[in-house]
Amino acid sequence: MGDLSEPTKDLSGLFDPSRVAVIGATERDGSVGRAVMTNLLADFEGTVVPVNPSRESVCGEPCASSIGEAGDVDLAVVVVPAGAAVEAVREAGEAGVENVVVITAGFGEAGSEGAARERELERVANEHGLNLVGPNCLGIISTPAGLNATFAPGNALPGSIAFASQSGAIVTAVLDWAAQQGIGFSDVVSLGNKTVLDETDFFETWGNDPDTDVIIGYLESIDDGRRFLDRVDEVTRETPVVLLKSGRTEAGAKAASSHTGAIAGSERAYEAGLAQAGVLRVGSLEELFDAARVLADQPLPDSDGVAVVTNAGGAGVLATDAIGDTRLSRATFEEETVEALEEALPAGANRYNPVDVIGDADAERFDRALEIVLDDPNVGAAAVLSAPTATVSYDALARVIADRRAEHDEPIVASLMGGDRVANAEAILGEAGVPNYFDPDRAVRSLETLADHRDVTTRERSTPTSFEVDRERAESIVSDARERGGATLGVEAMDLLEAYGIETPDSEIVSDPEAAVEAVDRIGGPVVMKIVSPDILHKTDIGGVKVGVERSDVADAYEDLVSRAYAYRSDATVEGVQIQELVDLEDDVETIVGVNRDPQFGPLVLFGLGGVFVEVFEDTAVRVAPVADRDAREMVEGIDAYPLLSGARGGEPVAIDAIVETIQRLSQLVTDHPEILELDVNPLVASPDGVIALDLRATLEAADAESDAAGTEATTEADATTGTETTVEGDARERDQETPQ
Amino acid sequence: MGDLSEPTKDLSGLFDPSRVAVIGATERDGSVGRAVMTNLLADFEGTVVPVNPSRESVCGEPCASSIGEAGDVDLAVVVVPAGAAVEAVREAGEAGVENVVVITAGFGEAGSEGAARERELERVANEHGLNLVGPNCLGIISTPAGLNATFAPGNALPGSIAFASQSGAIVTAVLDWAAQQGIGFSDVVSLGNKTVLDETDFFETWGNDPDTDVIIGYLESIDDGRRFLDRVDEVTRETPVVLLKSGRTEAGAKAASSHTGAIAGSERAYEAGLAQAGVLRVGSLEELFDAARVLADQPLPDSDGVAVVTNAGGAGVLATDAIGDTRLSRATFEEETVEALEEALPAGANRYNPVDVIGDADAERFDRALEIVLDDPNVGAAAVLSAPTATVSYDALARVIADRRAEHDEPIVASLMGGDRVANAEAILGEAGVPNYFDPDRAVRSLETLADHRDVTTRERSTPTSFEVDRERAESIVSDARERGGATLGVEAMDLLEAYGIETPDSEIVSDPEAAVEAVDRIGGPVVMKIVSPDILHKTDIGGVKVGVERSDVADAYEDLVSRAYAYRSDATVEGVQIQELVDLEDDVETIVGVNRDPQFGPLVLFGLGGVFVEVFEDTAVRVAPVADRDAREMVEGIDAYPLLSGARGGEPVAIDAIVETIQRLSQLVTDHPEILELDVNPLVASPDGVIALDLRATLEAADAESDAAGTEATTEADATTGTETTVEGDARERDQETPQ
Repeated sequence: MGDLSEPTKDLSGLFDPSRVAVIGATERDGSVGRAVMTNLLADFEGTVVPVNPSRESVCGEPCASSIGEAGDVDLAVVVVPAGAAVEAVREAGEAGVENVVVITAGFGEAGSEGAARERELERVANEHGLNLVGPNCLGIISTPAGLNATFAPGNALPGSIAFASQSGAIVTAVLDWAAQQGIGFSDVVSLGNKTVLDETDFFETWGNDPDTDVIIGYLESIDDGRRFLDRVDEVTRETPVVLLKSGRTEAGAKAASSHTGAIAGSERAYEAGLAQAGVLRVGSLEELFDAARVLADQPLPDSDGVAVVTNAGGAGVLATDAIGDTRLSRATFEEETVEALEEALPAGANRYNPVDVIGDADAERFDRALEIVLDDPNVGAAAVLSAPTATVSYDALARVIADRRAEHDEPIVASLMGGDRVANAEAILGEAGVPNYFDPDRAVRSLETLADHRDVTTRERSTPTSFEVDRERAESIVSDARERGGATLGVEAMDLLEAYGIETPDSEIVSDPEAAVEAVDRIGGPVVMKIVSPDILHKTDIGGVKVGVERSDVADAYEDLVSRAYAYRSDATVEGVQIQELVDLEDDVETIVGVNRDPQFGPLVLFGLGGVFVEVFEDTAVRVAPVADRDAREMVEGIDAYPLLSGARGGEPVAIDAIVETIQRLSQLVTDHPEILELDVNPLVASPDGVIALDLRATLEAADAESDAAGTEATTEADATTGTETTVEGDARERDQETPQ
Repeated sequence: MGDLSEPTKDLSGLFDPSRVAVIGATERDGSVGRAVMTNLLADFEGTVVPVNPSRESVCGEPCASSIGEAGDVDLAVVVVPAGAAVEAVREAGEAGVENVVVITAGFGEAGSEGAARERELERVANEHGLNLVGPNCLGIISTPAGLNATFAPGNALPGSIAFASQSGAIVTAVLDWAAQQGIGFSDVVSLGNKTVLDETDFFETWGNDPDTDVIIGYLESIDDGRRFLDRVDEVTRETPVVLLKSGRTEAGAKAASSHTGAIAGSERAYEAGLAQAGVLRVGSLEELFDAARVLADQPLPDSDGVAVVTNAGGAGVLATDAIGDTRLSRATFEEETVEALEEALPAGANRYNPVDVIGDADAERFDRALEIVLDDPNVGAAAVLSAPTATVSYDALARVIADRRAEHDEPIVASLMGGDRVANAEAILGEAGVPNYFDPDRAVRSLETLADHRDVTTRERSTPTSFEVDRERAESIVSDARERGGATLGVEAMDLLEAYGIETPDSEIVSDPEAAVEAVDRIGGPVVMKIVSPDILHKTDIGGVKVGVERSDVADAYEDLVSRAYAYRSDATVEGVQIQELVDLEDDVETIVGVNRDPQFGPLVLFGLGGVFVEVFEDTAVRVAPVADRDAREMVEGIDAYPLLSGARGGEPVAIDAIVETIQRLSQLVTDHPEILELDVNPLVASPDGVIALDLRATLEAADAESDAAGTEATTEADATTGTETTVEGDARERDQETPQ
């Protein structure tokens, strides 16, 4: 796990080396060593040194007998067999090489022997401070340097997309396909087992790379989710990051896990973490490249209003449907726009959006309409759709679109529909950075991608609020409970919430009937009364809880509770009776705030409405902690049941701000105290006046677990093995009110 | 609107004519008449006769001066200007021509003058019993006959896909694109304004056409939904029908409406109606053709288990995710399969699903694995995925897949990933009918399409049950209420339900205190008591409803209710007091069954759970009536809240069968009585013992509306203009129990 404060790694020697050594270079037909040499020698302007003690030269280049003799090498590519790879890396480190790509397989993906080898590789790399890619990878490509240090059968075209992939096979498939499609790359990295360098290192580097406009990735796991989130959040403020994170489904996660040996994190954690980092997530390779292309070439729209210009009514309807499916909207034109269109277009044309220039339009008529709608202030982007007709020349229309794109700030996408007759127009559009799709649906979706990234670049920073809390008191509550070992967290469970400024029912422990009456006078009756005894775990079973006790009955109730305790166990230690405020739930809404820990992302905070809303509809919102105000508000507003909170159904709205604040305070609690493994405030009752927590359940890390303040891993292991569950039965609801004992 | 009992139209003369006349044929450059002539003369083996009184010949064919002189014409194509088109059709009809394609525009899509012209065209067509395509269309193509009677710039390749489109522009775009993709068609029809022949006529014809394997369509409206549903339901039992129905979104529906002039029906009605007809609905052109291709060439799978064979772990994970997104599942292999794979594959390969033959596999190893998994009884379909490697030849792999496809009953799809290196392999696969996709996601989705259609072909017939009901009693309740005009439907609202065998709370109207006590003795107390008076509309406002009255208080309550009535209005007609069973709602679930009428599909039945489930979550299921047992059960099981009914949360399940039956009885009620425009049973309380309807609201067609037993249109118009709302306030819930008065 990386140190969160470490600086961005300098990977310039990796992507732009002057001298590259290939350790294990050979000329054997079909060998990886030969393929790497051939690829390197193709375009690279620097020096390539094959390292092979048993040969004079490889592919015409004189061999060095060892890396130590290879001169001042910036990058070493290791292709020796697995058994020799760690030693080769060590020698490279000792020779002062700073950047190493280990293509060799046979590490973590290959049983326990391989795993041991990988640990040794990591040790050696760290000892020498190496920037190490792999092992078990295809290599890397950097087109600005003409560097192809892979054994892939093809190369990448130059371009501004940087691509990292956890699967080498996906890289080879993508390279071949992208070449055919005319899609170019700045850098391509096959991540392999990510022993040292991982996606976060590359995304950070590419975020500062002038040659890179878009970062895309195929990932099966993110090993240090918290670091990824913090660092990639900075990257996405400028450079779009689009990810195909596979293993989305349960079966997919299992397949990914058996394929890479990586531990699959929870899909909900990835979903939340990637969104919080500003990553645009896609579900397929096609979507990945549709997004990459439009982000690489088009400006971001100022607004979500889309203008559609078409010569085919049907295409206009399809585009309108597609807009309806997205977060975009059909732009409503200003009156002047409609008038200008009326003047520019023949009778029968539609001057409203979608603008139908009708079937006999030529490119020039398209142009007039396009120019007019692009000047409308409500138009943030435009889509031009055309069916083939006798009057429209696709080449001319493509040039019109290319020219307008160059002149205006708005993004423009095209759906010139057809087959062979579109080929040349597509090339013209491609040069202008305008993607063309047969299907209007995909054209519209590409505009949505731009709007999504615009929102990432303009959104408020997610800086967690630091509330004034009684951290020491919470610390001592948690450590006391842990020292007691497997004991149940008692009355102090609610104190934990109070220490973090979360309202709980008023309560007092008294030890005689007179004090009980005084307590009721202070709290206000009726009240809930409960026996307080470490010897009585299930108070309700022995009649140790009384709900709705009036002032006049309090003294009698006190005596009754105490005698029930002794009747149950004559040697019971009775510490007294708890007098607790009775919370009236009428017209209030029961919500839930929960926390659990994800192996990759750390504490995950969940919000939802109580009962069937969570259990049947699974209507919840999740964020990675620490949760900022922005995130907490999105959580509350993001659930389907939000109308029940906002008063949209006619009732008075509950105190949304208080819920938002409570979520953040709980986020702060679990962030400050990593010993709290899981936590559920259920219910957090929300009313128009505020919120009150009626019940808390928490699971603490066992005191004997390895203590590591920053140690999510230790914590999580403890959870699975020795975690102590502190069940808090306290529940100040009218129907069954019982608090921690 | 078509007669539901009319036979399938004979369109053989349209698609396979011997002699075709072109009325309005010319040689003018760029004219439609010339384009049609040129297309017809290209491949058609029959005779083409241009009809033009002012020319000797057109495109080398001698002209007839009128259609009457054109000989024994099977098909006339009309391209004269709008002003002359109706007359041309009339002359064709008088000359004995049975099939006419009217390409000419300027009808319903062109203002009120055009609409009048279209009505006249319809009249003429019906007078002569013409099979008329259009007007305002591109024409038709039938590849088996070599017939291209369109003015499209290209032609269709031969194939087994029949395509109908409501947009001519979409046809031209698709023809060009499909030619490039190698996709062929049997027939292509541009539907135009559908004045006479519509999608239902063509789908029925193609359902019986040996040259057609798949029917696909682009539609913006279905004018007679009920006829479509009945007839297309028969077609889809054998021939798949895939539709892109645009205007899905509100904005899209508006765009479609302004484009075609057609009235947009409700999206929910289309959704339900198309599903009930067994139509596979897609959202984009790309999906339409993905579905068409796989359905045209591949067998249907016996089961939903998919085997994945790949040389690339990453591709396997993507395919597994994709399977998880569909209704398909990853096949679990038999032990013998795993053993056979273990023997056939090298160490390191994955013998479980997805089968990873690993990176150094050749086509032969793929073949061994594919053969083994196809023999597993749990495998219903296979997907073969490959990244480019040094060891696998895509051409050889394509031949392996083609051979296995030919030998086995299971469908096989491919994702040989890459660009130029896939071209030849794709051609080999294409000949074998195996679609290839760059994206494994689309490969899996195409398998889901096959499974979807298999379910349509094997599903139980949707034959509505005819329950024994008291139809006459319901008839008289409805007609009495309508005769009273705007009056509120009274106590008899619940009688309506009883007449159709739906349980309602026990109830009796009494006219003195003694009878009230006797009624309580019979019904069992406590009860709900309500004043019964036609002069008191809002009973609760005057204290005219008492809930939970005990036997001992019944006599006093009677006197009190009557005196309140007179206090409110001294001249009130008091018919008595209703004594109603008090329904205890504890542990029961409140459901809703509603009906409204769609202009295209007729009565739509809705089911959901009461309160927030419908209002906030919109968790409802909808079907077009009449609703069969199968449909009603799907509705109940289809809502997200089903676990609340089925006892999945630990409670006792409610009587699902009783809900299913009640939905059907209500469906029968509204089908038997088209005067009932809308209806809401809310709540229908479901308990483990059965269901009981506590409240009914209904809207009846006004008595002065045009009465037409089969007339959905008349009914609906009445709804929007003169419909009488009969508000039923009756509600036998404990908290507010009041029944129809």
